Amino acid sequence: QGWELVEIDGIKRLQKTFKFNNFANALSFTNKIGALCEQEGHHPAILTEWGRVTVTWWSHKIKGLHVNDFVMAAKTDALL
Amino acid sequence: QGWELVEIDGIKRLQKTFKFNNFANALSFTNKIGALCEQEGHHPAILTEWGRVTVTWWSHKIKGLHVNDFVMAAKTDALL
Repeated sequence: QGWELVEIDGIKRLQKTFKFNNFANALSFTNKIGALCEQEGHHPAILTEWGRVTVTWWSHKIKGLHVNDFVMAAKTDALL
Repeated sequence: QGWELVEIDGIKRLQKTFKFNNFANALSFTNKIGALCEQEGHHPAILTEWGRVTVTWWSHKIKGLHVNDFVMAAKTDALL
């Protein structure tokens, strides 16, 4: 899958960087994730840069990872 | 202005967090920045989260800050 388990500020998170060939395609993917997370009511951190988008999922309420984050990670992959 | 000088991975950058009242407005601002940076041919890092967008400007070529980054920061403020 390519998702990494990272710990930032003491909170475990799922993170993956998606590569694109320019800025516009990266931003387009960010917007697809935006539509998904609004629909699901669960919001990640989305870092948009030239040629790449880094997505980080975790559950704010439990300050860590819930099974839902793994589901959202899989749904993020499916947006490609 | 509210822009902070930060050093990440040994590179000085300009960074500011803009607050919004939901995810959709944050993503909308991300897209405004996207249009600006495509127009100017200079791309920042844009972190989109629920209720906030953190923008980071620096110049990749010189691995630091150029006067153009300060201009882009001002233009980012003007998008609000």
